[in-house]
Amino acid sequence: MTYTLADAVAVLDRTPASLDALLRGLPDQWTTGNEGPETWSPFDVIGHLLHADRTDWLPRAEHLLTHGDTLPFPPFDRFAQIETSKGKTLAELLDTFRQERAACLVRLAAMHLTEADLARVGRHPEFGRVTLAQLFATWVAHDLDHVAQVARVMGRQYTEAVGPWRAYLRIIGPA
Amino acid sequence: MTYTLADAVAVLDRTPASLDALLRGLPDQWTTGNEGPETWSPFDVIGHLLHADRTDWLPRAEHLLTHGDTLPFPPFDRFAQIETSKGKTLAELLDTFRQERAACLVRLAAMHLTEADLARVGRHPEFGRVTLAQLFATWVAHDLDHVAQVARVMGRQYTEAVGPWRAYLRIIGPA
Repeated sequence: MTYTLADAVAVLDRTPASLDALLRGLPDQWTTGNEGPETWSPFDVIGHLLHADRTDWLPRAEHLLTHGDTLPFPPFDRFAQIETSKGKTLAELLDTFRQERAACLVRLAAMHLTEADLARVGRHPEFGRVTLAQLFATWVAHDLDHVAQVARVMGRQYTEAVGPWRAYLRIIGPA
Repeated sequence: MTYTLADAVAVLDRTPASLDALLRGLPDQWTTGNEGPETWSPFDVIGHLLHADRTDWLPRAEHLLTHGDTLPFPPFDRFAQIETSKGKTLAELLDTFRQERAACLVRLAAMHLTEADLARVGRHPEFGRVTLAQLFATWVAHDLDHVAQVARVMGRQYTEAVGPWRAYLRIIGPA
């Protein structure tokens, strides 16, 4: 599909409410179950999305607009939520994610980015040259990747419970 | 995780609102884009979930409670929504799915199922003997499978837009 910032923002705006509707108030087994050692539960994912909004997407956009491709983005800690979510409830994380995302979108709108800005180039520490448009598209796809992950992790809690039907369930897969 | 009908219902109750929050009001490109020929868009998925609630899950449960494993479930048409969704808007399908699901859960509660009922056995046309508990667990996992699908299909609309970041995005995958 054609990329516009408005289309990207339309998804970014909806992710917190969608995850909230799916997860808030669920029995803990659904929200703390994961896929095994070193994998994430829905609780972990919400903490990760929140941390990424705080430290990754807009800070990288601002870094790109300031430094162009002369200075790589600072690294992003993909495991920080293990510490930052400690002692929090899922409801608190969902509330904070919603507030943080809303604040990010206000900040983004205030940047009044033009098509020329979206074509500007920064430097990713691994990939090299990337555009601002690619960064924002990745913000969207990253949200959706983690929505899919939450649904998959939850579904897999029923791997045994569904019996032979697992053959039809893509998120679980055949035995 | 341990299986209880209450845990299953907790998810079934949340799916329509979660998909509604994700999809309602999005630009059409997001909701009608698919993964290529013979694949489904988010619009198609909502029609499918609605059709399955109408014709598959509770009708099969009632069939099982009536016939045990003497008579296989009637087949389920997994492509019926191609016809039944025609001329509908996504907003209409989301509204109807929410109403249909709520009505199903009222009907389910009124069945006052016991643990013994959940252990009762029916006959799947392909798999043979399946329990009522497995049927309901599959209802839940089927919801989650399609939530994951909706997120994946949407994310893949940005396969080009994310540039080199696709290497980090599981729903898109490396080039």
